[in-house]
Amino acid sequence: MGWPVHRPLRTIAVCAPATPLLREYADAVSALAAAEFPGIELHFHDQCFAEDGHFAGNDATRLAALLDCANDARFDAVWFAKGGYGSNRIAGDFLGKVGPDARKKAYLGYSDCGTLLGALYRAGVGKPVHAPMPVDIMRDGGSDAIRRVLAWFSGDDSGLEAGLTGAPAAAFNLYTLAMLVGTDLMPSLSGHEVLIEEVGEYEYAIDRLLFHVSQHLHDIAGLRLGEVSAVPENDRPFGATVEEIARYWCEKHAIAYLGRAAIGHSSANRIVPFGLEA
Amino acid sequence: MGWPVHRPLRTIAVCAPATPLLREYADAVSALAAAEFPGIELHFHDQCFAEDGHFAGNDATRLAALLDCANDARFDAVWFAKGGYGSNRIAGDFLGKVGPDARKKAYLGYSDCGTLLGALYRAGVGKPVHAPMPVDIMRDGGSDAIRRVLAWFSGDDSGLEAGLTGAPAAAFNLYTLAMLVGTDLMPSLSGHEVLIEEVGEYEYAIDRLLFHVSQHLHDIAGLRLGEVSAVPENDRPFGATVEEIARYWCEKHAIAYLGRAAIGHSSANRIVPFGLEA
Repeated sequence: MGWPVHRPLRTIAVCAPATPLLREYADAVSALAAAEFPGIELHFHDQCFAEDGHFAGNDATRLAALLDCANDARFDAVWFAKGGYGSNRIAGDFLGKVGPDARKKAYLGYSDCGTLLGALYRAGVGKPVHAPMPVDIMRDGGSDAIRRVLAWFSGDDSGLEAGLTGAPAAAFNLYTLAMLVGTDLMPSLSGHEVLIEEVGEYEYAIDRLLFHVSQHLHDIAGLRLGEVSAVPENDRPFGATVEEIARYWCEKHAIAYLGRAAIGHSSANRIVPFGLEA
Repeated sequence: MGWPVHRPLRTIAVCAPATPLLREYADAVSALAAAEFPGIELHFHDQCFAEDGHFAGNDATRLAALLDCANDARFDAVWFAKGGYGSNRIAGDFLGKVGPDARKKAYLGYSDCGTLLGALYRAGVGKPVHAPMPVDIMRDGGSDAIRRVLAWFSGDDSGLEAGLTGAPAAAFNLYTLAMLVGTDLMPSLSGHEVLIEEVGEYEYAIDRLLFHVSQHLHDIAGLRLGEVSAVPENDRPFGATVEEIARYWCEKHAIAYLGRAAIGHSSANRIVPFGLEA
């Protein structure tokens, strides 16, 4: 039971609980790992490349692949290939079917896959870790994002978000967190430093999401604001920066605003193990 | 205390709790009312035309105007001019300052202003009514939407949503409702028929919003789906229609799916008094 102290994780399963990965990205990640991290074996589940409408296979296909990865004793960690939307549709059923080996693993990803990280954390299954995903190899500087995770698998903690204080932490995409709060997948974040990031949302939408989320996070230790990127231009200026928006809602609900964080939808996205770092 | 049986409402105050109204729309609504509903007096508060970044004046300005309208005994109803985003930022403070006259009024609007309708309903203040707003005069057929509300003010219930069964009802924009659930502004909708509508959201976002909302509405009498308009084209098909999406989440959470409803971001948007119709 529970997560052992961080040790090198050699055999990593990759699946796609939300949307499909292009095979060329999997190949590029595998090539980088083979060249630079020979101690690591990556196993991309074929489901990563499945397509069914919006999703990387229908719910049953994605759930089966996630269970293949989680319940197989050969794998030390499960790395989510890509976000996009869809992991919430299988998270509850997944937790109902995890076996004992699933509880020993780390689970890595972010964005939409934050729903799974949150659900795992709530259930006390394995070690959820906010981290770059294989799809990030496509970004400018994406190889460095991938190296950060491969190094972490190898036992190197230099890719951790630098502002982690030792207090328990959790990191989420803001919209993903807004959809998670109040549901049966939401963990208690009481006493946690909560890091949030966002991409592609208008400032008014960020304000609206923080209105919602801040009401649900009244007992956290504090909020840190990651990158907020690709904010669309609206027909008029909002009138406040995203940091001012975050400070506003924190102040309104007596949540400590703890400054910025190096997480986000970019290759600078750093690693945040949920809970205590060990 | 409480809302009297629906009677003609002659003197109507208009304010903008979210974003500003163009003066030409106010003038057009006033002209239509003067020509066809001489028994009704519309008073557009100057704040309708104020601008401060995204909003129709800053929070203090919008709150003051809303209180001017709500607490003045001359007015029988408060009609929200336009949605857009922002009524959530003043709803809590508003409810803390409503006087006895505010409790006798009807409050009409939709979209973002659904936050105020919900908050009023939670607090038991006045009669919240999902209804077209002055800004709707700009739409194709918008004059008919305005007439529907002016007729309702006049005591004519022919503009009510035709599927109302006599069970208590409430109607919301889906995204607005998703941001309202679990907050200190959210009313109990236990035993209510809940009508939802949406505009301008991807199907995957509608799926995600319904994932969230359906977990919070487990004890409602049923869900009805209004118009879902201006769905953007995604890079791939979602794989389910919006009605299939609604049915899916209803089934998953044992919520009765009650079919379609004539509400939405169009001139066909009909009137839904919150609670019992009287």
